Amino acid sequence: MPVLELNQEDQYLVASGETPLLEVYAALPERLFPPFPPVELPGGVGGLVERGGFAQTFFFPADVLGLTFETPSGQRIVAGGRVVKNVQGYDLVRPFVGSFGVLGRALEVVLRLRPARAAALWRYERTGELRPRFVWEAEGDRLAFHWGHPRELERAGWSAELELEPGIDYTPLFPEGMGVGQGGPLRDDRFAWADGGGRPPLPPAFAKLAQALDGGGA
Amino acid sequence: MPVLELNQEDQYLVASGETPLLEVYAALPERLFPPFPPVELPGGVGGLVERGGFAQTFFFPADVLGLTFETPSGQRIVAGGRVVKNVQGYDLVRPFVGSFGVLGRALEVVLRLRPARAAALWRYERTGELRPRFVWEAEGDRLAFHWGHPRELERAGWSAELELEPGIDYTPLFPEGMGVGQGGPLRDDRFAWADGGGRPPLPPAFAKLAQALDGGGA
Repeated sequence: MPVLELNQEDQYLVASGETPLLEVYAALPERLFPPFPPVELPGGVGGLVERGGFAQTFFFPADVLGLTFETPSGQRIVAGGRVVKNVQGYDLVRPFVGSFGVLGRALEVVLRLRPARAAALWRYERTGELRPRFVWEAEGDRLAFHWGHPRELERAGWSAELELEPGIDYTPLFPEGMGVGQGGPLRDDRFAWADGGGRPPLPPAFAKLAQALDGGGA
Repeated sequence: MPVLELNQEDQYLVASGETPLLEVYAALPERLFPPFPPVELPGGVGGLVERGGFAQTFFFPADVLGLTFETPSGQRIVAGGRVVKNVQGYDLVRPFVGSFGVLGRALEVVLRLRPARAAALWRYERTGELRPRFVWEAEGDRLAFHWGHPRELERAGWSAELELEPGIDYTPLFPEGMGVGQGGPLRDDRFAWADGGGRPPLPPAFAKLAQALDGGGA
């Protein structure tokens, strides 16, 4: 399933959960960016959101404006909206982000888009005075992705010799699924990502919340 | 109760729920700012977080790094942490922000602080090309508060003639409590705030979540 809606004026995009990340990039105009780097990861947009994003150095949940998810027992829950201004309270979007499937699966996701004049993916040697928007380690290499004003890219440490082609496909690294675990091929600020890895330990209060949304309670 | 901890290096502050907003300002060094304007509102920091912030034009929940809250039946829940990097998933902080007391009361709040070289509160005439971080209407006046580089303040529409003294106390406007309702004395991008006002309509899924955290379920 493809990108379902692209609104350039209000700067958001709606995609089905299984939309591949690179398909989102392909659907976007040149100077508008989603909250993830131009690489492919298991599970598409839904998987990304369930894992709480990838490689970001900012608060990723803020860029998930809304979503529809299905709880393990099949309850369908619609949360959030399509514009930033609609974040008014009673927030069921943010607990879903990074819930590692405990609350269910994302059927549809509304992502915030951000405008920028330039973007680049490069081998990251930490020379910049500005932290790139995305930083990760892939099989030993450190990589960065950033967008902004061309001068901002330089401040972030980008240089032409270090630049890489966007569109790296990491899915073959995770035949058993992408989860949290030591010794995996990818690593970001939050986690080491391993093939067949699991989810982080579940706090009891969050387990209660999951059970309630899945059909328990009033 | 006062500010409990101030960490300038990691840029966060811990305050008890009842800490007045202006007491937070008084505890901070000159160039470090909390995610609210220098005005007093009912309920202190806890009330602010329960109502989802005040007057912000950014995603306020991202600046609440952690909290301890007590559910209506007295369950104590600790959520989040003290640094941005700790936002890893299973997020119980963000559903609390803007939950209007449905999940309980905030006992302790960890707020992100941001550094800036200059700040100002002024009568807002919408002349700037940059939206101030906080914009609101108070009894007919439009006001703005912003921090950043001095040039950024000018771009936001600040001018010396329009500048106001920080520290306005709005609590006398809300003898019956601050809530959402028409015809009240304050208004921001999200809501009109009225004396004795209530909370927005509660979505059924969020009501389930509240019931679960309050002691139901596993």
